Amino acid sequence: MILNIFKIGGSLANDGNQRRAFISNLASLEHPCIVVHGGGKAASEMSRKLGIEVKMLEGRRITNEATLKVVVMTYAGLINKSLVADLQAAGINCIGLTGADANIIEAHKRTGSAIDYGFAGDIDRVNTGILTKLIQDDISPVIAPITHDGKGQLLNTNADTIATALASALADTYTVHLYYIMDRKGVLSDPNDLESVIPELKLNDIDAMRKDGIIVKGMIPKLHNAESALKSGVGSVFLTDVEGMSSMGKSGTSIITE
Amino acid sequence: MILNIFKIGGSLANDGNQRRAFISNLASLEHPCIVVHGGGKAASEMSRKLGIEVKMLEGRRITNEATLKVVVMTYAGLINKSLVADLQAAGINCIGLTGADANIIEAHKRTGSAIDYGFAGDIDRVNTGILTKLIQDDISPVIAPITHDGKGQLLNTNADTIATALASALADTYTVHLYYIMDRKGVLSDPNDLESVIPELKLNDIDAMRKDGIIVKGMIPKLHNAESALKSGVGSVFLTDVEGMSSMGKSGTSIITE
Repeated sequence: MILNIFKIGGSLANDGNQRRAFISNLASLEHPCIVVHGGGKAASEMSRKLGIEVKMLEGRRITNEATLKVVVMTYAGLINKSLVADLQAAGINCIGLTGADANIIEAHKRTGSAIDYGFAGDIDRVNTGILTKLIQDDISPVIAPITHDGKGQLLNTNADTIATALASALADTYTVHLYYIMDRKGVLSDPNDLESVIPELKLNDIDAMRKDGIIVKGMIPKLHNAESALKSGVGSVFLTDVEGMSSMGKSGTSIITE
Repeated sequence: MILNIFKIGGSLANDGNQRRAFISNLASLEHPCIVVHGGGKAASEMSRKLGIEVKMLEGRRITNEATLKVVVMTYAGLINKSLVADLQAAGINCIGLTGADANIIEAHKRTGSAIDYGFAGDIDRVNTGILTKLIQDDISPVIAPITHDGKGQLLNTNADTIATALASALADTYTVHLYYIMDRKGVLSDPNDLESVIPELKLNDIDAMRKDGIIVKGMIPKLHNAESALKSGVGSVFLTDVEGMSSMGKSGTSIITE
């Protein structure tokens, strides 16, 4: 059985038009599916409103105690529940969850890093039981990027990493298609030309393309995640924008092993 | 099969000691159970931090758009997820949900009232299917007091009312014991004497006690809810504090039909 997993960014989750297009696409595709969402932009906005300093390092949020409260409120509260309500309205029965719910994602606070990321969670284990039952009942899980350590501590975990971990863990049960939905149409051969989408990208070519400066910034960890997913048995990994998502891999960039 | 439903207030959800006592009691009792929590105090605090005016009328929050965002963040995000993480740590596998998740609670925006409560939701229907499945799988639902109208609108619904509606709907499947956990030990015969707990309160006596000024303020809607639950087939309804909860109805006030 095929299972589609869509990771959407915070800007998509916030933007009215993009959000509507995503939901409309999702409603027209086969479901149940799994949606993993970010929400960094909204969390930064909320932090500023509350007078909490936003500290980012290489795209990762430094999560002190006050910031953790903000990301939990914003991701698991505001973004997750408004997305769930909108998906329900579009006829997609879904359930909004974090990694703490039903102990879906066990993680530990990141330590040993040269940088202190605060309450950042690195994933130890995904418990797929409840997810497969929900999917069997035609209920689509909508996952906010919050995990827990099993000792009462909530943790902030990157949404791309969560989507990858879920896809990898569920690859034993389903033929998983993992979609990273981005602002761009795919991986670009020329960062200045938004139409220069690479249709197929071989894992073996990624290192060279990074050295050549074609793969830069946020695309580097994203492609690391793609690699990790494929090596864990995920059927296919696509990087595309909202428009590309409805073509089911026929547009955007497909990451391939050979 | 017995199902215990515990409604806890916002102050309990916030207070360190009370919260720990509640979780410890819950861990020692038979579970799965259902927990419904409030969070009004935290929502008011967050509103003030964000410069949003708090408007209450007869204990009910006037929920404009900005306030709705605050209650969704606070109830479904902060309070719900930190409670879930703490219950997981205590060995209670649980899942934090709102009424929008899996379409558990369908509601409509309150209209026709002399007062405009804004985005306040009156409950139309409880869908128990997912709840009974979770309970069967030994997963305790932890419910935040947010519902939806099925058209994409989240709504703010009183937590006592949600606990009552869930208890009533589940009374067909389980012998439901409904506990309203309060600050006080029970319904008091003398509001100035915190030890004057009425052990058994007959539904028929409530009206007279209200006229006599014994039942006042927030206790009035609470006892209306208790009455509604009993009339819908809920096995028993108790009003007690955290200490009383572990006695399973042997302390506090038991509401009885005869």
